[in-house]
Amino acid sequence: MILTVTLNAALDLTYHVPRLTPHASHRVRQVTERPGGKGLNVARVLAALGFETAVTGFAGGDTGRELRALLAADAAGVTDALVEVSGNTRRTVGVVDESTGDTTQLNEPGPHVGTAEWDGFLDAYRELLHSGTKVVALCGSLPPGVPVGAYAELVREARTARTPVLLDTSGEPLRRGLAARPDLVKPNAHELAGITGTSEPLRAARAAQQRGARAVAASLGADGMLLVTQDGTWSAGVPERLAGNPTGAGDSAVAGLLSGLAEGLPWPDRLARAVALSAATVRSPVAGEFDEQTYARLLPSVKVQQVDTP
Amino acid sequence: MILTVTLNAALDLTYHVPRLTPHASHRVRQVTERPGGKGLNVARVLAALGFETAVTGFAGGDTGRELRALLAADAAGVTDALVEVSGNTRRTVGVVDESTGDTTQLNEPGPHVGTAEWDGFLDAYRELLHSGTKVVALCGSLPPGVPVGAYAELVREARTARTPVLLDTSGEPLRRGLAARPDLVKPNAHELAGITGTSEPLRAARAAQQRGARAVAASLGADGMLLVTQDGTWSAGVPERLAGNPTGAGDSAVAGLLSGLAEGLPWPDRLARAVALSAATVRSPVAGEFDEQTYARLLPSVKVQQVDTP
Repeated sequence: MILTVTLNAALDLTYHVPRLTPHASHRVRQVTERPGGKGLNVARVLAALGFETAVTGFAGGDTGRELRALLAADAAGVTDALVEVSGNTRRTVGVVDESTGDTTQLNEPGPHVGTAEWDGFLDAYRELLHSGTKVVALCGSLPPGVPVGAYAELVREARTARTPVLLDTSGEPLRRGLAARPDLVKPNAHELAGITGTSEPLRAARAAQQRGARAVAASLGADGMLLVTQDGTWSAGVPERLAGNPTGAGDSAVAGLLSGLAEGLPWPDRLARAVALSAATVRSPVAGEFDEQTYARLLPSVKVQQVDTP
Repeated sequence: MILTVTLNAALDLTYHVPRLTPHASHRVRQVTERPGGKGLNVARVLAALGFETAVTGFAGGDTGRELRALLAADAAGVTDALVEVSGNTRRTVGVVDESTGDTTQLNEPGPHVGTAEWDGFLDAYRELLHSGTKVVALCGSLPPGVPVGAYAELVREARTARTPVLLDTSGEPLRRGLAARPDLVKPNAHELAGITGTSEPLRAARAAQQRGARAVAASLGADGMLLVTQDGTWSAGVPERLAGNPTGAGDSAVAGLLSGLAEGLPWPDRLARAVALSAATVRSPVAGEFDEQTYARLLPSVKVQQVDTP
């Protein structure tokens, strides 16, 4: 089983309006509701690829109930191992302006998680690590109340359980998480620059590695990905320029890396999966989902190149 | 008991953001949740004034459950006589830009109401009319699936039950509702112009009266209100210019008219209540609520003037 952790899961709402005009009133033409939060997106991609996948994190209140109902109704078949919390799961609202195709995003902060709730989660997480979890991914932002060192703690627990752990977050939670020595981190160029202070991707990825990560996979948008490991450094991209919606492309990259980790594939193969899945997500008509045909077509064409160590 | 009908009730969300930038991502600083929809707003004002008040209409799904929980928790003590529907109660999202104080509104369309659900509502409504309802107000837009002549039907039922009925809606539902001869309609200047084709308020109000309403109370924003009845015509306003948020001012005006109707007050007194409540809502720091002290201060100062019939 592959486990993903989403401490600040969300009920994702997408609103379509003919045109977004600040300070005006809009009738929303179309409403879409999805279970959201990075780890849930990663899990859905993994489940669609056929991997047995479970999600944990927090869910609470009426919005939490709605999120869990949507997850249960999803044909992909992700196992719900979310932990009940007293506050309401946050909503995110994406407003799609149909005249431009652009999205304006509004993200609620999330429920306040109490100390007892955090301790309860740690117990549930340990239990999951010891009951069939092959690899685990820790994804996204922290809800209010959760200690800023939360990911460092979850990384240490995974290492104690000898479970490979991938960390995908940003800012101070990433900085602290790195020090706990995760097997892999997947920052984007912006997040990487934020914690290392350098915007040159290769130097920044090596700096992140020196801070504790055993491997660093940096997603560079249309430029593909860069992977720095103890066994070598590789870059990869797709041979064609893809137009589309980049929402969820980073989460699909995590799913690709994680599935390769679960299957014990060599690093270049993990990277190829991540790049192909990411590109197939950009091309999908539905934001955050990947196009299976595009994935199947792109995977053999991904160019993985070894980068010489200076 | 005063009854208000809200066929398209809503879970009203208010998001505060430092500044709303189209096509950017925003962290919402503060989230407020309220039971919403015109009839629910009217009912809360009436309950705060001490009137025994019930609300009916539709509520469904997780959003409907959340709305009902908020209504039950409200200290004002409105009786919940909402009818269960299979679809989800709509949300409305008001995004407050803290840099300007302006609000951008996004309104979901509402659940689809099936024929059997509409028939079920009619039964519940008839039952309420015959079990202690002194006056009834029909408020707001229609959800998808409800016949466009719905308000005309509800007006006829009220007249059959000899219950005075106020109609507050717009467009085609208002046009059809007028023909069923409601006791009072409360359009704003824009809605009035929309159905009568004339923008001069007095002529438009008389035209609406000729289309079937026994009385027409037109809300004219900062210019106060105009009331055309079979007993005479009056205009009224407050002696001071009030700055503030006009959200909910129209609903408070309905509450003022309705409470005066329930108590059998003369028309000028009903109008004075409507104008004072409306102004006290503009002055309230919380959108849609009225400031009780401002109401008590303004009520005796409202100037009601008879308008000579040409």
